[in-house]
Amino acid sequence: MRSFASDNNSGAHPAVMQALVDANPGDMKAYGDDEISIHTDEVLKEYFGSQARIHYVTTGTAANVLGLRAVTHTYNSVICSDVAHINTDECGAPEAFGGIKLVPVPTENGKLTPRAIAPYLGHIGFVHASQPKVISITQPTEVGTLYSLKEIEDICQFAHDRDLLVHMDGARIANACAALDCSFFDMTTALDVDLLSFGGTKNGCIMSEAVLFLNPDIGSGFPYLRKQAMQLVSKMRFVSAQLQAYLKDDLWLKNASNANAMARRLAEKAGQIPGVTIKGSVDCNAVFATMPPAATEILLEKYYFYVWDEHDHTLRWMTSWATTEEMVDEFVEDMRKAVESC
Amino acid sequence: MRSFASDNNSGAHPAVMQALVDANPGDMKAYGDDEISIHTDEVLKEYFGSQARIHYVTTGTAANVLGLRAVTHTYNSVICSDVAHINTDECGAPEAFGGIKLVPVPTENGKLTPRAIAPYLGHIGFVHASQPKVISITQPTEVGTLYSLKEIEDICQFAHDRDLLVHMDGARIANACAALDCSFFDMTTALDVDLLSFGGTKNGCIMSEAVLFLNPDIGSGFPYLRKQAMQLVSKMRFVSAQLQAYLKDDLWLKNASNANAMARRLAEKAGQIPGVTIKGSVDCNAVFATMPPAATEILLEKYYFYVWDEHDHTLRWMTSWATTEEMVDEFVEDMRKAVESC
Amino acid sequence: MRSFASDNNSGAHPAVMQALVDANPGDMKAYGDDEISIHTDEVLKEYFGSQARIHYVTTGTAANVLGLRAVTHTYNSVICSDVAHINTDECGAPEAFGGIKLVPVPTENGKLTPRAIAPYLGHIGFVHASQPKVISITQPTEVGTLYSLKEIEDICQFAHDRDLLVHMDGARIANACAALDCSFFDMTTALDVDLLSFGGTKNGCIMSEAVLFLNPDIGSGFPYLRKQAMQLVSKMRFVSAQLQAYLKDDLWLKNASNANAMARRLAEKAGQIPGVTIKGSVDCNAVFATMPPAATEILLEKYYFYVWDEHDHTLRWMTSWATTEEMVDEFVEDMRKAVESC
Amino acid sequence: MRSFASDNNSGAHPAVMQALVDANPGDMKAYGDDEISIHTDEVLKEYFGSQARIHYVTTGTAANVLGLRAVTHTYNSVICSDVAHINTDECGAPEAFGGIKLVPVPTENGKLTPRAIAPYLGHIGFVHASQPKVISITQPTEVGTLYSLKEIEDICQFAHDRDLLVHMDGARIANACAALDCSFFDMTTALDVDLLSFGGTKNGCIMSEAVLFLNPDIGSGFPYLRKQAMQLVSKMRFVSAQLQAYLKDDLWLKNASNANAMARRLAEKAGQIPGVTIKGSVDCNAVFATMPPAATEILLEKYYFYVWDEHDHTLRWMTSWATTEEMVDEFVEDMRKAVESC
Repeated sequence: MRSFASDNNSGAHPAVMQALVDANPGDMKAYGDDEISIHTDEVLKEYFGSQARIHYVTTGTAANVLGLRAVTHTYNSVICSDVAHINTDECGAPEAFGGIKLVPVPTENGKLTPRAIAPYLGHIGFVHASQPKVISITQPTEVGTLYSLKEIEDICQFAHDRDLLVHMDGARIANACAALDCSFFDMTTALDVDLLSFGGTKNGCIMSEAVLFLNPDIGSGFPYLRKQAMQLVSKMRFVSAQLQAYLKDDLWLKNASNANAMARRLAEKAGQIPGVTIKGSVDCNAVFATMPPAATEILLEKYYFYVWDEHDHTLRWMTSWATTEEMVDEFVEDMRKAVESC
Repeated sequence: MRSFASDNNSGAHPAVMQALVDANPGDMKAYGDDEISIHTDEVLKEYFGSQARIHYVTTGTAANVLGLRAVTHTYNSVICSDVAHINTDECGAPEAFGGIKLVPVPTENGKLTPRAIAPYLGHIGFVHASQPKVISITQPTEVGTLYSLKEIEDICQFAHDRDLLVHMDGARIANACAALDCSFFDMTTALDVDLLSFGGTKNGCIMSEAVLFLNPDIGSGFPYLRKQAMQLVSKMRFVSAQLQAYLKDDLWLKNASNANAMARRLAEKAGQIPGVTIKGSVDCNAVFATMPPAATEILLEKYYFYVWDEHDHTLRWMTSWATTEEMVDEFVEDMRKAVESC
Repeated sequence: MRSFASDNNSGAHPAVMQALVDANPGDMKAYGDDEISIHTDEVLKEYFGSQARIHYVTTGTAANVLGLRAVTHTYNSVICSDVAHINTDECGAPEAFGGIKLVPVPTENGKLTPRAIAPYLGHIGFVHASQPKVISITQPTEVGTLYSLKEIEDICQFAHDRDLLVHMDGARIANACAALDCSFFDMTTALDVDLLSFGGTKNGCIMSEAVLFLNPDIGSGFPYLRKQAMQLVSKMRFVSAQLQAYLKDDLWLKNASNANAMARRLAEKAGQIPGVTIKGSVDCNAVFATMPPAATEILLEKYYFYVWDEHDHTLRWMTSWATTEEMVDEFVEDMRKAVESC
Repeated sequence: MRSFASDNNSGAHPAVMQALVDANPGDMKAYGDDEISIHTDEVLKEYFGSQARIHYVTTGTAANVLGLRAVTHTYNSVICSDVAHINTDECGAPEAFGGIKLVPVPTENGKLTPRAIAPYLGHIGFVHASQPKVISITQPTEVGTLYSLKEIEDICQFAHDRDLLVHMDGARIANACAALDCSFFDMTTALDVDLLSFGGTKNGCIMSEAVLFLNPDIGSGFPYLRKQAMQLVSKMRFVSAQLQAYLKDDLWLKNASNANAMARRLAEKAGQIPGVTIKGSVDCNAVFATMPPAATEILLEKYYFYVWDEHDHTLRWMTSWATTEEMVDEFVEDMRKAVESC
């Protein structure tokens, strides 16, 4: 299968797979008390600050929902973009398993701003209204756009002025850091982001996500919550070993940079095909485009990708750490033929 | 580390690890729509019957809680042994994330019987009382004992006569089948067990569990529930590939047979040491024993295992697929020296 | 206190209070098995059809949340207006206690339409998306507008064509029926509304609401759910007795008609004051208006009412069964003086 | 109907009903901001101390579940007697709506002791185990027995030494105070009980319960929780007015004393009938007894009461504020005839 559908369609980077093989021999303590997990915690603290508390989970949905649940009462609400993954792609998990009310704020490009949020804060102190507690942003957003560091800082400032926390859904944070040429620290701790869903799976791991409490005043009790939420893996070494390899020798950065570069290459080349239009900017590893539906049909015979919006026939193409120039070029060539044949 | 603490302390069988490596190259569909997962479903149906519906999850707690949640209303209760994993070792997950009331029934050896259950059914049809819906048994039990096939059949009969379902927590079902010399089918579908938590992790996988609805009339909607419960892994091929290797060439049986044999060897040899007493029978891969606490102290310097009950200083030793005769013999030898020195 | 803030500020109609006094003597069965409750069920069936199943609760929030919960799985969503009481005034109860994801649809006048709903149905059959199950409408709406019977019928048709249910939040259904000159049956069962939150409290009771399942195929298990949801009142006769009096001799209609008439009187008279503007139509017993904020300040010294929207200084005035022509006229007179003095 | 089944079968004391009538005229603020509710808060503080925070709810189940939920995380457990109302008669509400794991401790007479509790505290600090947070006692117990003040104090001491809280289910606390000749304060605040479910309904109100946080460090956020839990009554004056009358002129004490006296009278007189055996002591207003089943059949034709335990044919008779000497004597006389005729 040749996929431009999602970075989830790629496998693991060989170095990550090798880390699994290397972690395998012998007995180790379970549930995160093993040496690999303990060391990986230390590695992550080098990236996010020594105050960070790190908890591994197996899915991005778990990272989002449990992080948010850990810092909210059920009478709190979480403000998010209307296209936020937590709002549209987690099958109601924040509500049902987090006990959280989401307040979706309409956005044009997936990005929240203080100005857009303000009217949605609701009646503070009014017993009939859910009380806002967290602003959740996704970086990069679900529609492929990026917050600048200044925009994140402004949201954090806005939030903290109102006693709110800021959560970042960083399922693809590596792609954002690569695109903005900054470190994980620059993008989170330095800007006073309070908690982070840190994703490794999409960028070269097999199943490795983490909740990071960057604000040292939040998140107590999380180990119990994680266990209760069915996310405490027994052979934890196999989760943390992935992240350790992922963070070694800038693998995360190389992988993300490749994915981003391949998306740019795809956008540039495909955008030159008459009949193909690239929509918006290509900030990371997602490309949104339109082409004649008949051409899409032809292309889908050989490739796997999504018609993102059936109303206006917007397509989404994603690249990953594993995408090569050859794959892009072949895809573009086939695209050209498909469009021309229609 | 040398562990007799838990089968969770062992790594993956090499064949399982190789399956991960083999599953890695290339793009595949995510969320279980890949060829490996689809094929693994078929393999599992060969073991459990074509009517079985199979859903992979990442932890045993998830398998138990989500399986039970899928077949209950929140006003239902689940009857279980007082030492059931769901009652004592899931940090309240069945209640908090499953919305389930557990009714723990006192047992001496971890095993439920119709006679023991009957007084705990509560007021059927009485609006103030949770209505029983499921009897949950663990095979082998948390204290290392085994239900005979006849005992399971009797519980199923008792349950179905009262419109109840039977759930089996089979985190170690392979050890039970090896011990009773029967197939998975013989132990579940053939006896009318309705749903099963099928475990691979403890017996040679890295993280691979499944909910199996054997009764075709239950479990609809589970795919949504699994996603909502944060258990839908994106790169699912890496979960199912483990199980595929695990089920190939009777690997599950060889692994479980070895674990069971090593436990028997340990019990037989350790039981001959004056001062060491083996408690109960050793039906699978758990051994319960007592020895002078001072000897335990010495042994814990080199080995890792649990003082199971601090009140009477009962120890639990577990063996796994990876335990060897040499490891057992060395452990016994060290034990002999430790006891003698006290 | 002189209130135009809410119909919740009025007491009970004397006939309702008398019913409580009359219901008091002697012993009766508890939890709804008393003669009064059983008879009230029969009375309500005369209004809503013999297929209706009736369950009393103590708050409108309970009626909404438990009715919706009874017909949904946690992976279902409920589509509602963005200003729906369930979305803005129940402190997240549908999410936290109902396990429900709400999908708020933007509306201008609080009214949903098939056309407005359609884009919010989401990805049917897509495991990552909450699956819509109910369309919830409020009649009259939270902003005082009314659905015509035809509009309700259209929504029911749209819903049923897609295997969705229709819930009506009828906290003020009496006002709607009075305004549209139709019966409860005409507005609900006849249009194929599936379930109703029936309110008595605001229109002359002290605390008396009910969940009515009009569709005979839904709502099984509700008695257990109500008990579990802390809403099964022991001395139920005192809830049902209110409704019995409320439904006798058209008291509900007289009360609602008075409230509606007083709102019209207020709107007509206040609207003639220069500087006071009535916003929108006055369909039932709510009046939205603007006046100079300084005049509001003066008026609030003597009267109790809400500044509904602080941004544009919209005021909400509500009338009730207990509002008299004299109260309205005095309020208007004081309003005239206040505005003139500014 | 002549009921010795439950104190829930009686109506309201006339003074309570009159308070409702008196509270009715005119407009008042809703949701507890009315003068009656505010004053009732003050009255309750006179009884329980000025630090007490009081929140009215409509059912005893709501008082129990919401009080407990307010002081627990979902990974906490609540230790209670195996016959506790929260364990057996709330249809799983603590689990499903409170997110709480209950740990039922076997008792012979419904009373917990530090010695009985100790083995059930579980693995403190062990991430796989629910962490105990509250010990919940019922005073008087569900089987009619009473804790002495010293016994309560001992439990509080035991609890606080372990950083646990003590909750008292005081659905019938008035009966306990009357029996032990002490004040509400003596039985709760003075002994360091942390939170109380205070019941009025069974002892002369129609529907009036309250959650009282006596420990000033707990219970923040409860107003939001109550609203979210569907328990914030709009016309709150009608709940608080009941309690105000109930607490005036020692009505609560007179009512409870009568109920207790009538139970003693019943036990003494019935106990003298050959064939009737009173079981245990009659500490408050519950009497447990046995008689020939055939006599029970005859008696049930005229009276309403429960066969409490079908296994040994134990009957439960309850008296209330409304029970008179004549009613008791007639019941006993009919009982004598019934037994003699068998």
